[in-house]
Amino acid sequence: MAQKGNLMTVRQDVRVVDATLRDGGLVNDFFFTDEFVNALYRANVQAGVDYMEFGYKASKDIFDVEKFGKWKFCDEEHIRAVVGDNNSETKIAVMADVGRCDYHNDIIPKDESVIDLVRVATYIHQMPTAIRMIEDAKKKGYEVTCNIMALSKARESDLAQALDMLGNSCVDGIYLVDSYGNLYPEQIRAFSEQYLEVGEKYGKFVGIHAHNNQQLAFANTIEALVNGVSYLDATMNGMGRGCGNCSMELLLSFLKNPQYNVYPVFRFLEKHMVPLMQSGLKWGYDIPYLMTGKLNQHPSTAIAASKQGRTDYAQLYTELMDNI
Amino acid sequence: MAQKGNLMTVRQDVRVVDATLRDGGLVNDFFFTDEFVNALYRANVQAGVDYMEFGYKASKDIFDVEKFGKWKFCDEEHIRAVVGDNNSETKIAVMADVGRCDYHNDIIPKDESVIDLVRVATYIHQMPTAIRMIEDAKKKGYEVTCNIMALSKARESDLAQALDMLGNSCVDGIYLVDSYGNLYPEQIRAFSEQYLEVGEKYGKFVGIHAHNNQQLAFANTIEALVNGVSYLDATMNGMGRGCGNCSMELLLSFLKNPQYNVYPVFRFLEKHMVPLMQSGLKWGYDIPYLMTGKLNQHPSTAIAASKQGRTDYAQLYTELMDNI
Repeated sequence: MAQKGNLMTVRQDVRVVDATLRDGGLVNDFFFTDEFVNALYRANVQAGVDYMEFGYKASKDIFDVEKFGKWKFCDEEHIRAVVGDNNSETKIAVMADVGRCDYHNDIIPKDESVIDLVRVATYIHQMPTAIRMIEDAKKKGYEVTCNIMALSKARESDLAQALDMLGNSCVDGIYLVDSYGNLYPEQIRAFSEQYLEVGEKYGKFVGIHAHNNQQLAFANTIEALVNGVSYLDATMNGMGRGCGNCSMELLLSFLKNPQYNVYPVFRFLEKHMVPLMQSGLKWGYDIPYLMTGKLNQHPSTAIAASKQGRTDYAQLYTELMDNI
Repeated sequence: MAQKGNLMTVRQDVRVVDATLRDGGLVNDFFFTDEFVNALYRANVQAGVDYMEFGYKASKDIFDVEKFGKWKFCDEEHIRAVVGDNNSETKIAVMADVGRCDYHNDIIPKDESVIDLVRVATYIHQMPTAIRMIEDAKKKGYEVTCNIMALSKARESDLAQALDMLGNSCVDGIYLVDSYGNLYPEQIRAFSEQYLEVGEKYGKFVGIHAHNNQQLAFANTIEALVNGVSYLDATMNGMGRGCGNCSMELLLSFLKNPQYNVYPVFRFLEKHMVPLMQSGLKWGYDIPYLMTGKLNQHPSTAIAASKQGRTDYAQLYTELMDNI
């Protein structure tokens, strides 16, 4: 597949999606201060970021509202308290997890909502439900993506079928999600080609959401970009579950479109991310995450090891090898 | 250029070079304990690492031996105190900097030395002296590479000429060195092609030494590898000047050759790198390094900012923009 664009020019199809609250919320159970969220919204608007994902539309039937911050649920009123009617160029996104979202009730018609984009997150075996949720959100008037998680664990034949189902659905975009931070750039290249082939055939855009277990989140994001992927997820300082995500400061430093401005991001990092890190929240590359990434495992064991401050790497590696 | 090898097979031409003492020595002025150096040597041998670089052959006329640890100078007796006659598969390397090495006197004939490889490090405007040093080391019996530093600052016409000079010299290998951590994978791809074309024409291998300013040291190393580059520099936990280098644990996790074994690396990290980090030594990705990397500047300003604990990123960025 030929390279799309180059380092001197602008790709007009690119969209940057800030996922700090959503993936970063997995670090602190979504307990962000209002000051933080307000400042993040302003920083994204000033930086020219195309979408800001506020969090999950999780079911209050399944999750205890006392145990999570409000961005686990993204009530309309809470988003509006930050963005008003959102008179900005930055669109608003939320994530709806298959099996964890009461979408019939919690996703209201678009003409009553300030949300623009609903991202349906699914494991590959849940595709029929994902399609149902996509149809529901589309009918209600939203832009809709489908984010197939844990791609590195999916059977190739299942993936081909899932992509075909999505091609034939009313979804607007399909996301390549490396949940375990397992994939190398040459694999991202191959998956990008596969997704883009479906995308071109059916008129869907393709996005990428990467994790940094092997220090490849940014590299894999721009590898996908160079191949034609256009929706790019990033988070402030890479904040996200476990080792975190592609860093917004790296991505905006890379992109040449004058729409994007990294300066407000640096100001946000200084004023809001530094205190957050000093408060003791932890994410980012660490040896246990490399291990689960390399071994294509869910990061939960690594998160537990990291929380316990384990540095007995040799023993930990031996334990993880037993899980293969 | 077609991909060389794939994720399931082994490239027999690959050589892994541990540069922990040499590039890591720039973090602590080469004051490593003997216990650390002995353990590092053992770990490299057990991990199947092909070369271990012990440090610089710096001139004692230029540098005060009181101000630096012994690996700034790499006296023969100090290396032998660690490796004896080096009855292992891991070869011994040192770096000789153009203008900072009294090579006539300090590089002794190979048949009196346990060193195998002399790496001549040069800026592009020093090529004639580099060639003289290469000829000297080759005549004395060593394997020799030339490491052209700060590649991202070199004029393209100068680089073409330098590569041609090296092609016509007796050097064994040519290194692509991204001293400022400025280059993106697509640029590494282009430089790899250029270096490999010269390498194939004149029978020289090509190596890569990357820095992690933009979290791309590992990604750029495997990008070069996939294109045919064969000598790969890495350091334990990425230890190296400023933001550091490609991490050995990532590289050995990637390589499929059964010769390599990442387990002794994990044990070394746990027993020796964790205490080193706890002692207060700092390296690794941080916002100031991203800025100098993106702006193609020497990391000195970022190192100073990081040492001062500066987190006023917006102001720092404004200052750095004045240096372009």
